[in-house]
Amino acid sequence: MSSAKVITAAMLAIGDELLSGRTKDRNIGHLADMLFIAGIDLREVRIVGDEEDMIVEALNALRQRYDYVFTSGGIGPTHDDITADAVAKAFGVACTHDPAAMELMGAMYARRGMEFNEARQRMARMPVGSRHIPNSVSTAPGFSIGNVHVMAGVPQVFVAMLDVLLPTLETGSPVLSRAVVSPFGEGDIGTPLTAIQKAHPETSIGSYPRFDGTRFSTEIVIRSREPAPAEAAEKAILAMIAEIASAKAAG
Amino acid sequence: MSSAKVITAAMLAIGDELLSGRTKDRNIGHLADMLFIAGIDLREVRIVGDEEDMIVEALNALRQRYDYVFTSGGIGPTHDDITADAVAKAFGVACTHDPAAMELMGAMYARRGMEFNEARQRMARMPVGSRHIPNSVSTAPGFSIGNVHVMAGVPQVFVAMLDVLLPTLETGSPVLSRAVVSPFGEGDIGTPLTAIQKAHPETSIGSYPRFDGTRFSTEIVIRSREPAPAEAAEKAILAMIAEIASAKAAG
Repeated sequence: MSSAKVITAAMLAIGDELLSGRTKDRNIGHLADMLFIAGIDLREVRIVGDEEDMIVEALNALRQRYDYVFTSGGIGPTHDDITADAVAKAFGVACTHDPAAMELMGAMYARRGMEFNEARQRMARMPVGSRHIPNSVSTAPGFSIGNVHVMAGVPQVFVAMLDVLLPTLETGSPVLSRAVVSPFGEGDIGTPLTAIQKAHPETSIGSYPRFDGTRFSTEIVIRSREPAPAEAAEKAILAMIAEIASAKAAG
Repeated sequence: MSSAKVITAAMLAIGDELLSGRTKDRNIGHLADMLFIAGIDLREVRIVGDEEDMIVEALNALRQRYDYVFTSGGIGPTHDDITADAVAKAFGVACTHDPAAMELMGAMYARRGMEFNEARQRMARMPVGSRHIPNSVSTAPGFSIGNVHVMAGVPQVFVAMLDVLLPTLETGSPVLSRAVVSPFGEGDIGTPLTAIQKAHPETSIGSYPRFDGTRFSTEIVIRSREPAPAEAAEKAILAMIAEIASAKAAG
Protein backbone atom coordinates (compact mmCIF):
# COMPACT_ATOMS: atom_id res chain seq x y z
CA MET A 1 0.00 0.00 0.00
CA SER A 2 3.04 2.27 0.29
CA SER A 3 2.85 3.45 -3.33
CA ALA A 4 -0.89 4.09 -3.25
CA LYS A 5 -2.01 7.70 -3.25
CA VAL A 6 -4.34 8.49 -0.37
CA ILE A 7 -6.70 11.46 -0.52
CA THR A 8 -8.77 12.11 2.60
CA ALA A 9 -12.07 13.87 3.13
CA ALA A 10 -14.60 14.86 5.77
CA MET A 11 -18.24 15.83 5.56
CA LEU A 12 -20.07 18.47 7.56
CA ALA A 13 -23.86 18.13 7.36
CA ILE A 14 -25.59 21.28 8.58
CA GLY A 15 -29.16 21.67 9.80
CA ASP A 16 -31.29 21.67 12.96
CA GLU A 17 -33.71 19.32 11.21
CA LEU A 18 -31.08 16.55 11.12
CA LEU A 19 -30.59 16.79 14.89
CA SER A 20 -34.29 16.96 15.78
CA GLY A 21 -35.02 13.84 13.75
CA ARG A 22 -37.45 15.71 11.49
CA THR A 23 -35.28 15.00 8.46
CA LYS A 24 -33.38 11.76 8.02
CA ASP A 25 -30.12 12.56 6.28
CA ARG A 26 -29.53 10.92 2.91
CA ASN A 27 -26.53 12.92 1.77
CA ILE A 28 -23.93 11.32 4.05
CA GLY A 29 -24.57 7.84 2.66
CA HIS A 30 -24.58 9.12 -0.91
CA LEU A 31 -21.32 11.03 -0.47
CA ALA A 32 -19.76 7.98 1.21
CA ASP A 33 -20.71 5.81 -1.79
CA MET A 34 -19.45 8.31 -4.36
CA LEU A 35 -16.14 9.00 -2.58
CA PHE A 36 -15.49 5.30 -2.14
CA ILE A 37 -15.90 4.74 -5.87
CA ALA A 38 -13.70 7.77 -6.63
CA GLY A 39 -10.90 6.54 -4.36
CA ILE A 40 -11.23 9.35 -1.81
CA ASP A 41 -11.16 8.21 1.84
CA LEU A 42 -14.02 9.66 3.87
CA ARG A 43 -12.53 9.76 7.37
CA GLU A 44 -15.00 11.73 9.47
CA VAL A 45 -18.51 13.14 9.37
CA ARG A 46 -20.01 15.76 11.64
CA ILE A 47 -23.58 16.98 11.88
CA VAL A 48 -24.21 20.36 13.51
CA GLY A 49 -27.22 22.64 13.74
CA ASP A 50 -27.77 26.05 12.16
CA GLU A 51 -25.42 27.82 14.59
CA GLU A 52 -22.58 29.92 13.25
CA ASP A 53 -20.07 29.17 16.00
CA MET A 54 -20.60 25.43 15.67
CA ILE A 55 -20.23 25.51 11.89
CA VAL A 56 -17.09 27.67 11.99
CA GLU A 57 -15.44 25.50 14.62
CA ALA A 58 -16.21 22.22 12.86
CA LEU A 59 -15.15 23.59 9.49
CA ASN A 60 -11.83 24.88 10.77
CA ALA A 61 -11.09 21.59 12.49
CA LEU A 62 -11.94 19.51 9.42
CA ARG A 63 -10.39 21.63 6.67
CA GLN A 64 -7.01 21.62 8.38
CA ARG A 65 -7.03 17.88 8.91
CA TYR A 66 -8.35 16.51 5.60
CA ASP A 67 -7.66 17.10 1.90
CA TYR A 68 -11.30 17.93 1.17
CA VAL A 69 -14.34 18.98 3.20
CA PHE A 70 -17.82 18.62 1.76
CA THR A 71 -20.77 20.38 3.39
CA SER A 72 -24.52 19.98 2.89
CA GLY A 73 -27.30 22.31 3.91
CA GLY A 74 -27.91 25.89 4.90
CA ILE A 75 -27.49 27.63 1.54
CA GLY A 76 -31.16 28.37 0.84
CA PRO A 77 -32.98 31.70 0.92
CA THR A 78 -34.32 31.77 4.50
CA HIS A 79 -33.07 33.26 7.76
CA ASP A 80 -31.88 29.88 9.05
CA ASP A 81 -29.59 29.37 6.05
CA ILE A 82 -26.33 30.66 7.45
CA THR A 83 -23.75 28.35 5.91
CA ALA A 84 -22.30 30.91 3.44
CA ASP A 85 -21.73 33.42 6.25
CA ALA A 86 -20.20 30.77 8.50
CA VAL A 87 -17.83 29.55 5.77
CA ALA A 88 -16.77 33.14 5.04
CA LYS A 89 -16.11 33.67 8.74
CA ALA A 90 -14.07 30.46 8.93
CA PHE A 91 -11.90 31.70 6.06
CA GLY A 92 -11.77 35.27 7.37
CA VAL A 93 -13.22 36.80 4.18
CA ALA A 94 -16.37 38.78 3.43
CA CYS A 95 -19.61 37.14 2.32
CA THR A 96 -21.13 39.09 -0.55
CA HIS A 97 -23.60 38.71 -3.40
CA ASP A 98 -21.50 37.03 -6.10
CA PRO A 99 -21.93 38.99 -9.36
CA ALA A 100 -21.82 35.92 -11.63
CA ALA A 101 -24.36 34.09 -9.45
CA MET A 102 -26.61 37.17 -9.40
CA GLU A 103 -26.52 37.30 -13.18
CA LEU A 104 -27.17 33.57 -13.60
CA MET A 105 -30.06 33.54 -11.15
CA GLY A 106 -31.51 36.85 -12.29
CA ALA A 107 -31.72 35.51 -15.86
CA MET A 108 -33.38 32.29 -14.67
CA TYR A 109 -36.04 34.08 -12.61
CA ALA A 110 -36.66 36.53 -15.48
CA ARG A 111 -37.19 33.59 -17.88
CA ARG A 112 -39.67 32.06 -15.45
CA GLY A 113 -41.44 35.36 -14.80
CA MET A 114 -40.61 35.23 -11.12
CA GLU A 115 -39.43 38.04 -8.88
CA PHE A 116 -35.70 37.90 -8.04
CA ASN A 117 -36.43 39.17 -4.56
CA GLU A 118 -34.23 39.70 -1.49
CA ALA A 119 -34.69 36.12 -0.25
CA ARG A 120 -33.75 34.59 -3.60
CA GLN A 121 -30.79 36.98 -3.93
CA ARG A 122 -29.60 35.62 -0.60
CA MET A 123 -28.76 32.38 -2.43
CA ALA A 124 -26.19 34.29 -4.54
CA ARG A 125 -24.17 35.18 -1.44
CA MET A 126 -20.84 33.41 -1.02
CA PRO A 127 -17.42 34.06 0.47
CA VAL A 128 -15.28 36.35 -1.70
CA GLY A 129 -12.97 34.21 -3.84
CA SER A 130 -15.35 31.24 -4.18
CA ARG A 131 -15.69 29.17 -7.35
CA HIS A 132 -19.21 28.05 -8.33
CA ILE A 133 -20.47 24.48 -8.10
CA PRO A 134 -23.10 24.40 -10.87
CA ASN A 135 -26.66 23.42 -9.91
CA SER A 136 -28.50 21.78 -12.80
CA VAL A 137 -31.68 21.37 -10.74
CA SER A 138 -32.51 24.83 -9.44
CA THR A 139 -29.71 27.13 -10.72
CA ALA A 140 -28.51 28.69 -7.43
CA PRO A 141 -24.90 27.46 -7.33
CA GLY A 142 -22.99 25.87 -4.50
CA PHE A 143 -19.43 27.06 -4.06
CA SER A 144 -15.89 25.95 -3.33
CA ILE A 145 -13.36 27.95 -1.37
CA GLY A 146 -9.97 26.51 -0.53
CA ASN A 147 -10.52 22.80 0.04
CA VAL A 148 -14.13 23.27 1.22
CA HIS A 149 -17.03 22.41 -1.09
CA VAL A 150 -20.40 23.79 -0.06
CA MET A 151 -23.51 22.09 -1.42
CA ALA A 152 -27.25 22.13 -0.88
CA GLY A 153 -29.08 19.99 1.67
CA VAL A 154 -31.99 19.00 -0.58
CA PRO A 155 -30.86 15.55 -1.73
CA GLN A 156 -31.69 16.00 -5.42
CA VAL A 157 -29.62 19.19 -5.52
CA PHE A 158 -26.79 17.72 -3.44
CA VAL A 159 -26.54 14.78 -5.85
CA ALA A 160 -26.53 17.06 -8.91
CA MET A 161 -23.84 19.33 -7.45
CA LEU A 162 -21.64 16.42 -6.41
CA ASP A 163 -21.93 14.89 -9.90
CA VAL A 164 -20.38 18.05 -11.36
CA LEU A 165 -17.85 18.62 -8.59
CA LEU A 166 -16.37 15.16 -8.15
CA PRO A 167 -14.70 14.83 -11.60
CA THR A 168 -12.82 18.10 -10.92
CA LEU A 169 -11.16 16.78 -7.75
CA GLU A 170 -7.93 14.91 -7.31
CA THR A 171 -8.66 11.30 -6.46
CA GLY A 172 -6.58 8.57 -4.86
CA SER A 173 -5.96 4.96 -5.73
CA PRO A 174 -9.35 3.31 -5.52
CA VAL A 175 -9.83 0.85 -2.70
CA LEU A 176 -10.68 -2.66 -3.88
CA SER A 177 -13.38 -4.29 -1.84
CA ARG A 178 -14.57 -7.87 -1.81
CA ALA A 179 -17.21 -9.35 0.46
CA VAL A 180 -17.61 -12.87 1.78
CA VAL A 181 -20.83 -13.81 3.53
CA SER A 182 -20.26 -15.98 6.57
CA PRO A 183 -23.26 -18.07 7.66
CA PHE A 184 -21.83 -17.90 11.17
CA GLY A 185 -22.05 -15.01 13.60
CA GLU A 186 -19.16 -12.96 14.88
CA GLY A 187 -19.01 -15.09 18.01
CA ASP A 188 -17.93 -18.06 15.90
CA ILE A 189 -15.56 -16.28 13.56
CA GLY A 190 -14.13 -13.59 15.84
CA THR A 191 -10.99 -15.40 17.02
CA PRO A 192 -9.89 -16.97 13.71
CA LEU A 193 -10.70 -13.73 11.86
CA THR A 194 -8.43 -11.78 14.20
CA ALA A 195 -5.61 -14.18 13.27
CA ILE A 196 -6.38 -13.74 9.56
CA GLN A 197 -6.26 -9.93 9.90
CA LYS A 198 -2.87 -10.19 11.63
CA ALA A 199 -1.55 -12.47 8.89
CA HIS A 200 -2.72 -10.11 6.11
CA PRO A 201 -1.65 -6.65 7.28
CA GLU A 202 -1.94 -5.08 3.81
CA THR A 203 -5.69 -5.56 3.93
CA SER A 204 -8.30 -4.05 6.19
CA ILE A 205 -10.84 -6.72 7.12
CA GLY A 206 -14.19 -5.55 8.42
CA SER A 207 -16.84 -7.74 9.93
CA TYR A 208 -20.48 -6.64 9.80
CA PRO A 209 -23.09 -8.53 11.79
CA ARG A 210 -26.54 -9.07 10.37
CA PHE A 211 -29.46 -10.02 12.59
CA ASP A 212 -32.61 -11.45 11.03
CA GLY A 213 -34.60 -11.44 14.27
CA THR A 214 -33.45 -14.93 15.22
CA ARG A 215 -29.80 -15.43 14.41
CA PHE A 216 -26.67 -13.51 13.50
CA SER A 217 -24.71 -13.98 10.29
CA THR A 218 -21.77 -11.87 9.17
CA GLU A 219 -20.64 -10.07 6.08
CA ILE A 220 -16.87 -9.97 5.96
CA VAL A 221 -15.41 -7.22 3.80
CA ILE A 222 -11.78 -7.19 2.70
CA ARG A 223 -10.39 -3.84 1.56
CA SER A 224 -7.04 -3.31 -0.08
CA ARG A 225 -5.45 -0.99 -2.61
CA GLU A 226 -3.71 -3.94 -4.33
CA PRO A 227 -5.53 -7.06 -5.62
CA ALA A 228 -3.06 -9.78 -4.49
CA PRO A 229 -3.33 -9.26 -0.71
CA ALA A 230 -7.12 -9.13 -0.95
CA GLU A 231 -7.19 -12.44 -2.84
CA ALA A 232 -4.93 -14.10 -0.26
CA ALA A 233 -7.11 -12.84 2.61
CA GLU A 234 -10.26 -14.03 0.85
CA LYS A 235 -8.83 -17.55 0.49
CA ALA A 236 -7.95 -17.62 4.19
CA ILE A 237 -11.48 -16.51 5.11
CA LEU A 238 -13.06 -19.18 2.92
CA ALA A 239 -10.83 -21.80 4.56
CA MET A 240 -11.95 -20.52 7.97
CA ILE A 241 -15.61 -20.85 6.99
CA ALA A 242 -14.98 -24.38 5.70
CA GLU A 243 -13.34 -25.34 8.98
CA ILE A 244 -16.16 -23.97 11.15
CA ALA A 245 -18.79 -25.59 8.93
CA SER A 246 -16.98 -28.96 9.11
CA ALA A 247 -16.73 -28.73 12.89
CA LYS A 248 -20.44 -27.89 13.18
CA ALA A 249 -21.37 -30.72 10.75
CA ALA A 250 -19.32 -33.19 12.79
CA GLY A 251 -20.45 -31.87 16.18
CA MET B 1 -37.81 29.91 27.79
CA SER B 2 -35.70 31.06 30.74
CA SER B 3 -37.31 28.60 33.18
CA ALA B 4 -37.08 25.63 30.84
CA LYS B 5 -34.54 22.99 31.72
CA VAL B 6 -32.18 22.22 28.84
CA ILE B 7 -30.31 18.92 28.66
CA THR B 8 -27.85 18.53 25.79
CA ALA B 9 -26.47 15.49 24.03
CA ALA B 10 -24.15 14.35 21.28
CA MET B 11 -23.86 11.12 19.35
CA LEU B 12 -20.71 9.36 18.18
CA ALA B 13 -21.39 6.70 15.55
CA ILE B 14 -18.40 4.39 15.12
CA GLY B 15 -17.55 2.18 12.17
CA ASP B 16 -15.55 2.09 8.93
CA GLU B 17 -18.64 0.73 7.16
CA LEU B 18 -20.51 4.01 7.74
CA LEU B 19 -17.71 5.98 6.07
CA SER B 20 -17.26 3.62 3.12
CA GLY B 21 -20.97 3.76 2.31
CA ARG B 22 -21.34 -0.01 2.80
CA THR B 23 -23.77 0.55 5.65
CA LYS B 24 -26.29 3.38 5.70
CA ASP B 25 -26.64 4.54 9.29
CA ARG B 26 -30.10 4.24 10.83
CA ASN B 27 -29.20 4.85 14.47
CA ILE B 28 -28.59 8.60 14.21
CA GLY B 29 -32.12 9.30 12.97
CA HIS B 30 -33.64 6.99 15.56
CA LEU B 31 -31.70 8.58 18.42
CA ALA B 32 -32.64 12.05 17.15
CA ASP B 33 -36.34 11.09 17.18
CA MET B 34 -36.19 9.54 20.64
CA LEU B 35 -34.22 12.39 22.24
CA PHE B 36 -36.54 14.98 20.72
CA ILE B 37 -39.54 13.24 22.30
CA ALA B 38 -37.69 12.93 25.61
CA GLY B 39 -36.80 16.63 25.69
CA ILE B 40 -33.05 16.12 25.31
CA ASP B 41 -31.38 18.44 22.78
CA LEU B 42 -29.16 16.56 20.34
CA ARG B 43 -26.57 19.19 19.44
CA GLU B 44 -23.90 17.38 17.47
CA VAL B 45 -23.21 14.07 15.77
CA ARG B 46 -19.87 12.69 14.67
CA ILE B 47 -19.09 9.59 12.64
CA VAL B 48 -15.59 8.14 12.85
CA GLY B 49 -14.01 4.87 11.72
CA ASP B 50 -12.66 2.01 13.81
CA GLU B 51 -9.54 3.92 14.86
CA GLU B 52 -8.71 4.28 18.52
CA ASP B 53 -7.19 7.76 18.36
CA MET B 54 -10.17 9.15 16.46
CA ILE B 55 -12.67 7.62 18.87
CA VAL B 56 -10.79 8.84 21.96
CA GLU B 57 -10.43 12.36 20.61
CA ALA B 58 -14.07 12.68 19.56
CA LEU B 59 -15.32 11.18 22.81
CA ASN B 60 -13.24 13.51 24.98
CA ALA B 61 -14.38 16.54 22.99
CA LEU B 62 -18.05 15.58 23.18
CA ARG B 63 -18.30 14.35 26.77
CA GLN B 64 -16.87 17.59 28.11
CA ARG B 65 -19.22 19.73 26.10
CA TYR B 66 -22.58 17.95 26.41
CA ASP B 67 -24.63 16.44 29.23
CA TYR B 68 -24.80 13.05 27.52
CA VAL B 69 -22.90 11.25 24.79
CA PHE B 70 -24.41 8.23 23.05
CA THR B 71 -22.25 5.95 20.94
CA SER B 72 -23.17 3.22 18.47
CA GLY B 73 -21.01 0.46 17.06
CA GLY B 74 -17.78 -1.33 17.74
CA ILE B 75 -18.77 -3.50 20.73
CA GLY B 76 -19.01 -6.84 18.96
CA PRO B 77 -16.67 -9.85 19.20
CA THR B 78 -14.27 -9.21 16.32
CA HIS B 79 -10.86 -7.55 16.03
CA ASP B 80 -12.33 -4.37 14.53
CA ASP B 81 -14.61 -3.83 17.56
CA ILE B 82 -12.44 -1.49 19.59
CA THR B 83 -14.98 0.87 21.15
CA ALA B 84 -14.71 -0.55 24.71
CA ASP B 85 -10.92 -0.12 24.67
CA ALA B 86 -11.18 3.38 23.23
CA VAL B 87 -13.76 4.47 25.83
CA ALA B 88 -11.58 3.06 28.63
CA LYS B 89 -8.59 4.96 27.23
CA ALA B 90 -10.63 8.19 27.04
CA PHE B 91 -11.54 7.80 30.72
CA GLY B 92 -8.05 6.66 31.72
CA VAL B 93 -9.25 3.37 33.22
CA ALA B 94 -8.56 -0.27 32.41
CA CYS B 95 -10.77 -2.29 30.07
CA THR B 96 -11.42 -5.73 31.55
CA HIS B 97 -13.85 -8.64 31.30
CA ASP B 98 -16.75 -7.48 33.47
CA PRO B 99 -17.62 -10.31 35.93
CA ALA B 100 -21.38 -9.70 35.86
CA ALA B 101 -21.42 -9.59 32.04
CA MET B 102 -19.30 -12.78 31.90
CA GLU B 103 -21.82 -14.53 34.16
CA LEU B 104 -24.86 -13.29 32.23
CA MET B 105 -23.41 -14.23 28.86
CA GLY B 106 -21.90 -17.51 30.05
CA ALA B 107 -25.34 -18.63 31.28
CA MET B 108 -26.98 -17.63 28.00
CA TYR B 109 -24.48 -19.51 25.84
CA ALA B 110 -24.73 -22.55 28.17
CA ARG B 111 -28.54 -22.53 27.80
CA ARG B 112 -28.17 -22.41 24.02
CA GLY B 113 -25.46 -25.10 23.99
CA MET B 114 -22.95 -22.71 22.40
CA GLU B 115 -19.32 -22.29 23.26
CA PHE B 116 -18.56 -19.13 25.27
CA ASN B 117 -15.30 -18.70 23.39
CA GLU B 118 -12.65 -15.97 23.41
CA ALA B 119 -14.41 -13.89 20.75
CA ARG B 120 -17.74 -13.97 22.58
CA GLN B 121 -16.04 -13.19 25.89
CA ARG B 122 -14.62 -10.09 24.18
CA MET B 123 -18.18 -8.68 24.29
CA ALA B 124 -18.03 -8.76 28.11
CA ARG B 125 -15.11 -6.34 28.15
CA MET B 126 -15.84 -2.82 29.37
CA PRO B 127 -14.08 0.02 31.18
CA VAL B 128 -13.77 -0.61 34.92
CA GLY B 129 -16.60 1.18 36.72
CA SER B 130 -19.16 0.83 33.92
CA ARG B 131 -22.86 0.18 34.51
CA HIS B 132 -24.61 -2.25 32.15
CA ILE B 133 -27.14 -1.22 29.52
CA PRO B 134 -29.30 -4.36 29.23
CA ASN B 135 -29.62 -6.00 25.81
CA SER B 136 -32.93 -7.83 25.41
CA VAL B 137 -32.06 -8.96 21.88
CA SER B 138 -28.73 -10.73 22.18
CA THR B 139 -27.73 -10.49 25.89
CA ALA B 140 -24.24 -8.91 25.56
CA PRO B 141 -24.79 -5.62 27.42
CA GLY B 142 -23.86 -2.11 26.41
CA PHE B 143 -22.42 0.08 29.13
CA SER B 144 -22.45 3.54 30.63
CA ILE B 145 -19.45 5.26 32.17
CA GLY B 146 -19.68 8.84 33.38
CA ASN B 147 -21.99 10.59 30.94
CA VAL B 148 -21.13 8.27 28.03
CA HIS B 149 -23.56 5.56 26.95
CA VAL B 150 -22.12 2.88 24.70
CA MET B 151 -24.52 0.88 22.56
CA ALA B 152 -24.40 -1.62 19.71
CA GLY B 153 -24.36 -0.66 16.03
CA VAL B 154 -26.83 -3.31 14.85
CA PRO B 155 -30.03 -1.24 14.69
CA GLN B 156 -32.30 -3.79 16.41
CA VAL B 157 -29.91 -3.97 19.35
CA PHE B 158 -29.32 -0.19 19.43
CA VAL B 159 -33.08 0.39 19.61
CA ALA B 160 -33.52 -2.19 22.39
CA MET B 161 -30.69 -0.73 24.46
CA LEU B 162 -31.90 2.84 24.04
CA ASP B 163 -35.42 1.81 25.11
CA VAL B 164 -34.03 0.64 28.45
CA LEU B 165 -31.51 3.45 28.88
CA LEU B 166 -33.59 6.49 28.06
CA PRO B 167 -36.08 6.30 30.99
CA THR B 168 -33.10 6.29 33.40
CA LEU B 169 -31.73 9.62 32.14
CA GLU B 170 -32.52 13.13 33.24
CA THR B 171 -34.63 14.83 30.60
CA GLY B 172 -35.35 18.48 29.87
CA SER B 173 -38.53 20.37 29.13
CA PRO B 174 -39.84 18.83 25.92
CA VAL B 175 -39.73 21.04 22.88
CA LEU B 176 -43.13 21.65 21.33
CA SER B 177 -43.13 21.48 17.59
CA ARG B 178 -45.79 22.45 15.11
CA ALA B 179 -45.51 22.34 11.34
CA VAL B 180 -47.19 24.48 8.71
CA VAL B 181 -46.90 23.43 5.06
CA SER B 182 -46.36 26.36 2.73
CA PRO B 183 -47.34 25.76 -0.89
CA PHE B 184 -44.73 28.35 -1.81
CA GLY B 185 -40.98 27.83 -2.00
CA GLU B 186 -38.41 29.47 0.21
CA GLY B 187 -37.79 32.15 -2.41
CA ASP B 188 -41.31 33.45 -1.86
CA ILE B 189 -41.45 33.16 1.91
CA GLY B 190 -37.84 33.89 2.84
CA THR B 191 -38.11 37.62 3.49
CA PRO B 192 -41.43 37.68 5.39
CA LEU B 193 -40.42 34.59 7.36
CA THR B 194 -37.24 36.33 8.51
CA ALA B 195 -39.41 39.14 9.86
CA ILE B 196 -41.67 36.65 11.64
CA GLN B 197 -38.68 34.93 13.27
CA LYS B 198 -37.43 38.32 14.49
CA ALA B 199 -40.87 39.18 15.89
CA HIS B 200 -41.14 35.84 17.74
CA PRO B 201 -37.76 35.39 19.42
CA GLU B 202 -39.01 32.78 21.89
CA THR B 203 -39.54 30.38 19.04
CA SER B 204 -37.10 28.75 16.67
CA ILE B 205 -38.57 28.71 13.18
CA GLY B 206 -37.08 26.29 10.67
CA SER B 207 -37.82 26.19 6.99
CA TYR B 208 -37.38 22.94 5.08
CA PRO B 209 -37.59 22.95 1.30
CA ARG B 210 -39.21 20.06 -0.52
CA PHE B 211 -38.60 19.48 -4.20
CA ASP B 212 -40.94 17.19 -6.16
CA GLY B 213 -38.84 17.26 -9.35
CA THR B 214 -40.64 20.32 -10.71
CA ARG B 215 -41.30 22.84 -7.97
CA PHE B 216 -40.31 23.69 -4.43
CA SER B 217 -42.71 23.86 -1.49
CA THR B 218 -41.71 24.39 2.13
CA GLU B 219 -42.43 22.84 5.49
CA ILE B 220 -42.18 25.47 8.17
CA VAL B 221 -41.56 24.12 11.67
CA ILE B 222 -42.02 26.21 14.80
CA ARG B 223 -40.26 24.98 17.93
CA SER B 224 -40.76 26.38 21.40
CA ARG B 225 -40.68 25.18 24.97
CA GLU B 226 -43.89 27.13 25.79
CA PRO B 227 -47.15 26.82 23.84
CA ALA B 228 -48.18 30.51 23.63
CA PRO B 229 -45.24 31.80 21.56
CA ALA B 230 -45.57 28.87 19.14
CA GLU B 231 -49.26 29.65 18.64
CA ALA B 232 -48.56 33.31 17.96
CA ALA B 233 -45.85 32.45 15.44
CA GLU B 234 -48.13 29.94 13.72
CA LYS B 235 -50.83 32.60 13.28
CA ALA B 236 -48.29 35.00 11.77
CA ILE B 237 -47.12 32.32 9.35
CA LEU B 238 -50.67 31.50 8.26
CA ALA B 239 -51.28 35.22 7.67
CA MET B 240 -48.10 35.35 5.57
CA ILE B 241 -49.27 32.40 3.45
CA ALA B 242 -52.67 34.06 2.99
CA GLU B 243 -51.00 37.27 1.83
CA ILE B 244 -48.72 35.52 -0.69
CA ALA B 245 -51.63 33.43 -2.00
CA SER B 246 -53.81 36.54 -2.43
CA ALA B 247 -51.02 38.34 -4.29
CA LYS B 248 -50.52 35.36 -6.61
CA ALA B 249 -54.29 34.99 -7.17
CA ALA B 250 -54.53 38.69 -8.05
CA GLY B 251 -51.33 38.75 -10.13
